[in-house]
Amino acid sequence: MPFAFPVPLKDVRLQDPFLDRYARLVREKVIPYQWQALNDQVPGAEKSHAVENFRIAAGIAQGSFHGYVFQDSDLYKWLEAVAYRLCSDPDPTLEATADEAIELVASAQSADGYLNTYYTVAEPGQRWTDERRRHELYCAGHLMEAAVAYAEATGKGLLLDVARRLADHIGTVFGPGRKEGYPGHPGIELALIKLSRATGEHRYVELASYFIDERGKQPHFYDLEAQARGAKNLEDYYGSYVYEYTQAHMPVREQQEAVGHAVRAVYLYSGMADVALETGDESLATACRTLWRNLTECRMYITGGIGSQEFGEDFTSDYDLPNDTMYAETCAAIGLIFFAQRMLTLEPKGDYGDVLERALYNGVLSGISLEGDRFFYVNPLEVRPDACARRHDLKHVAPVRQPWFGCACCPPNLARLVASLGRYIYATSEEGLWVHLYAGSTLETTCAGTCVKLLQRTDYPKGEMIRLDMEPEAPVSFALGLRIPGWCRVPRLRLNGEDLELGPLLRDGYAYVKRTWSPGDRIELTLPMPVERVWAHHRVAADAGLVALQRGPIVYCLEEADHGRELGGLALQRHVALESRFDPGLLGGTTVIEGTALRQSGNALLYAMEPPREKPVPIRAVPYALWGNRGSGEMRVWVRERP
Amino acid sequence: MPFAFPVPLKDVRLQDPFLDRYARLVREKVIPYQWQALNDQVPGAEKSHAVENFRIAAGIAQGSFHGYVFQDSDLYKWLEAVAYRLCSDPDPTLEATADEAIELVASAQSADGYLNTYYTVAEPGQRWTDERRRHELYCAGHLMEAAVAYAEATGKGLLLDVARRLADHIGTVFGPGRKEGYPGHPGIELALIKLSRATGEHRYVELASYFIDERGKQPHFYDLEAQARGAKNLEDYYGSYVYEYTQAHMPVREQQEAVGHAVRAVYLYSGMADVALETGDESLATACRTLWRNLTECRMYITGGIGSQEFGEDFTSDYDLPNDTMYAETCAAIGLIFFAQRMLTLEPKGDYGDVLERALYNGVLSGISLEGDRFFYVNPLEVRPDACARRHDLKHVAPVRQPWFGCACCPPNLARLVASLGRYIYATSEEGLWVHLYAGSTLETTCAGTCVKLLQRTDYPKGEMIRLDMEPEAPVSFALGLRIPGWCRVPRLRLNGEDLELGPLLRDGYAYVKRTWSPGDRIELTLPMPVERVWAHHRVAADAGLVALQRGPIVYCLEEADHGRELGGLALQRHVALESRFDPGLLGGTTVIEGTALRQSGNALLYAMEPPREKPVPIRAVPYALWGNRGSGEMRVWVRERP
Repeated sequence: MPFAFPVPLKDVRLQDPFLDRYARLVREKVIPYQWQALNDQVPGAEKSHAVENFRIAAGIAQGSFHGYVFQDSDLYKWLEAVAYRLCSDPDPTLEATADEAIELVASAQSADGYLNTYYTVAEPGQRWTDERRRHELYCAGHLMEAAVAYAEATGKGLLLDVARRLADHIGTVFGPGRKEGYPGHPGIELALIKLSRATGEHRYVELASYFIDERGKQPHFYDLEAQARGAKNLEDYYGSYVYEYTQAHMPVREQQEAVGHAVRAVYLYSGMADVALETGDESLATACRTLWRNLTECRMYITGGIGSQEFGEDFTSDYDLPNDTMYAETCAAIGLIFFAQRMLTLEPKGDYGDVLERALYNGVLSGISLEGDRFFYVNPLEVRPDACARRHDLKHVAPVRQPWFGCACCPPNLARLVASLGRYIYATSEEGLWVHLYAGSTLETTCAGTCVKLLQRTDYPKGEMIRLDMEPEAPVSFALGLRIPGWCRVPRLRLNGEDLELGPLLRDGYAYVKRTWSPGDRIELTLPMPVERVWAHHRVAADAGLVALQRGPIVYCLEEADHGRELGGLALQRHVALESRFDPGLLGGTTVIEGTALRQSGNALLYAMEPPREKPVPIRAVPYALWGNRGSGEMRVWVRERP
Repeated sequence: MPFAFPVPLKDVRLQDPFLDRYARLVREKVIPYQWQALNDQVPGAEKSHAVENFRIAAGIAQGSFHGYVFQDSDLYKWLEAVAYRLCSDPDPTLEATADEAIELVASAQSADGYLNTYYTVAEPGQRWTDERRRHELYCAGHLMEAAVAYAEATGKGLLLDVARRLADHIGTVFGPGRKEGYPGHPGIELALIKLSRATGEHRYVELASYFIDERGKQPHFYDLEAQARGAKNLEDYYGSYVYEYTQAHMPVREQQEAVGHAVRAVYLYSGMADVALETGDESLATACRTLWRNLTECRMYITGGIGSQEFGEDFTSDYDLPNDTMYAETCAAIGLIFFAQRMLTLEPKGDYGDVLERALYNGVLSGISLEGDRFFYVNPLEVRPDACARRHDLKHVAPVRQPWFGCACCPPNLARLVASLGRYIYATSEEGLWVHLYAGSTLETTCAGTCVKLLQRTDYPKGEMIRLDMEPEAPVSFALGLRIPGWCRVPRLRLNGEDLELGPLLRDGYAYVKRTWSPGDRIELTLPMPVERVWAHHRVAADAGLVALQRGPIVYCLEEADHGRELGGLALQRHVALESRFDPGLLGGTTVIEGTALRQSGNALLYAMEPPREKPVPIRAVPYALWGNRGSGEMRVWVRERP
């Protein structure tokens, strides 16, 4: 089967009751706020200095560099989000602001193509001496992503030219016989593939391949560059773990387990999948599949969150998924979506789409508040604010969303994902059209040489019904692939009012309806969403004896706001019915799960020889992504179960 | 009721099948090994340098100080353990070695009485400038404890003279109008009380009182001494938490919660109780009761372990008792025993004795291996070696006992406790005789002016029966108080073969038999020990839905050696009978608990909509104190329960 590439963002118009809320927040809150932040105009907030760094590098302003070595990427991520937003909803004022920022970026570029304000301003002689730690290639990657998005959205080529010149400069620095290295923080690999597709230049694929193939070889690049700096050792907080931390502990094709910094991992794997797509390198595709399986079958939270510990923002070991001390950074779940999308492109299998959906509706959207002005960096599955206040191993866990972060990676990453969600819904190949996500939207694309308009109407995931109206310019034959989510036990499919027998149509988690499509053809897909109980693999020690609640793709949680404290004292009886109900007044309108549970109470003894007393109490579970919008309080996803 | 003071160690001869094993290990392994360690004679081990520091300070050797600032205390703790051991079992060779060490200590003392090799050797001009961090008073306390013990054991006064001279020197340094401070690490308070009792000098009680009363006053001593050093701030890893860390955040009588470094806490509380005993200060006794209740009713593990986190070796918040990331240092459980013993002296209540017994038989004895040559510093209640290897928040958790520690506090502390266990069994007042612990032993003491010999025979805690044979020199009337453990539901008491009705005899956890005792009187106490299930308070989130097993005072655990891995997958059904059985071939001979549990297994999915399958499997629980003697493997005390 040929690859199923996502359709360009401009071919999709998202009009979805559920996702529009988030798109609006990004448009109206996040992007304007972030621009203020980048320009140090948010009263009381830590100064970003990102724009000022460019002004200094461009010689427009005087001063010294401030911020992280990767501060440039904050501006690039903003530009990328702006590009996606302009794609779906033109805004001349915003575009003019972005154009100015782009001119500033361009004017900060050196004559040889180099562009990184940290080195230009702070350490001009030290370029390319510490790729392990200094994020030059990482920032370059974000520039390329922004440039490709902006060119696609506006047709303007200035930023793309800047990115090409930088990429070409990098090509003169890295390569066989030159600097034989790669980034400590991956990301540029997938960006180079985007750049190659946007420019038609295959050499960017080759550069991405080079970074990937070089990774983890011996003698080790990190040691060599440290020696070249005259450093005695790696001088790293992570010690010898630094090779795993950056997924550089062995060549990528030998890696069997998802290790190290979770965001770096999924950015790398995404780039690997992209290169496999572009080059047809089956060994790389196999490595991606191996890492995908380990990651999603042994090291992923039910929310799609990844990263089991704060140290190194790191994976730990198989089935080690603590619910409270975990990291599960918003950016990592976003990166998992990037990886899933590329695996879907490589081979449209429901598993990839299911994980993508799981991460999006749960561990990603949990990152932003209902008001769009507060963010979670860490997304725990169990929170007790008392413990967070006193426990050092929970010091990274904020029990309420925070206004902004010194290391401001998650909010802009969330912004660029949400603003580009249209790219995750549909994919096409020469033979077919895939629907990966269910979201109200209009697609205009070409299938088998014919212009096709597809209108998707749904109030998913509140509702169970998805209606797809096909409007080809002329009758045209192709296969329509509809993802049948793994959580759905009895999906129903109708074509023009007639039930279709689903079994024969199913392959790898997709139902394929192959026919000659005519204007007015209508598909009705029903994905019944009873309340489901979910159990973790028996090797997940942290979830033993516990159950989670899910309805459709939405993972639920219990909150102190509905139950008081000591949520650990609640037990769900397996036989007790749980019902869902849409509550229009709660959390901006949401479906809740209601039922009863047993609440434990006991005597005053710390340790007693009598079992705790129990009494039934009503419970109300709310979507995990909406937790923490009612003040500080306990929360838990995994609830004790009484079989 | 007058205070019930522990009887002197030399009045008790321990001959107990259970405890003798540990006493023998301390005598034959720990004390000799430790002497080698102190003299840097253990091949491959990190050098202690403790004896060498004294030699340098005494001018006998050349060189510089090495080790922790509290290195001196290692030698003092060894001398204290040796003293207790000589008390029960004279050994002229060992005594000669100790005498030599004592002469060395004496020769390192300055003319003005000062004694601390760190300052004498390394920073001679800086004495008493940093009590918060530098442990001068702490070391002095250990010297005093060793000195009192050695004098009592041998009648030799040299070390006691050294201790008195140091105490008198300290009295010239600290006090109103002089240095108005106190130790960062408490311990000297209880030591000064011992010194006062041994010497009859009340001024040492006054000095202990001063340290206690001064603690936490404003302006704060730590700030003042930092200013005096010219330091800008407290320069501490713990930041402003350092006041709580050392229990100096407020005056001790205002403290309501057990906070900070757990060992420091219980050492301080022990000293407070001692001072309350000596001075009759009811406000201090009340503070001790308040802290005792918070500590034992909200912040103590079922094993008697204390300290819920590694950061600060610290208490956290009420009912926050994680089973895996905890600290529960062996020294802290030992310190809890010190505190319990003093509260028992203040007011003989079963609760104090129960906690003392709980800590001794579980969280203290877990610290030493069956062979006596490996030690736990941290005593977790749930261990997964895989996770310990990969998780940073478990980096302090050793899944197997270690040969020795750079900071060698626990093994010698264990040695001095075990060697002095005879002091914890009996107490006397003018009116009565108390039996706090059940252990085979012979007591020779004076009750109501008459010499009384009491022979206790038992194989407790393997067996349920305790026989007490009273041999007074002449008939004498006094109350015999027998602790009736809280874990015992139906104790039975017989006097000279006749059943006694227990109810009327019970007061505060003790059964009092008041009569005129004649030679040949025999008490038989039976404490039936069926297997008990224990549940934690419903606010202990970490134990919700879990159950622990206990038989008599012994807390049990499950080990991988008996069940394979994934102990979290086992669930005990509440209705299933569990039986105990003595297994002479296991772990040096121990009582095990046997029964069946449900073992979870499941499909390959990480998250499934079908519940895990379960099948009954045999289980075997072993005493917690004996865990980890069969190689590295999983262990857990709290097991899932199916009500």
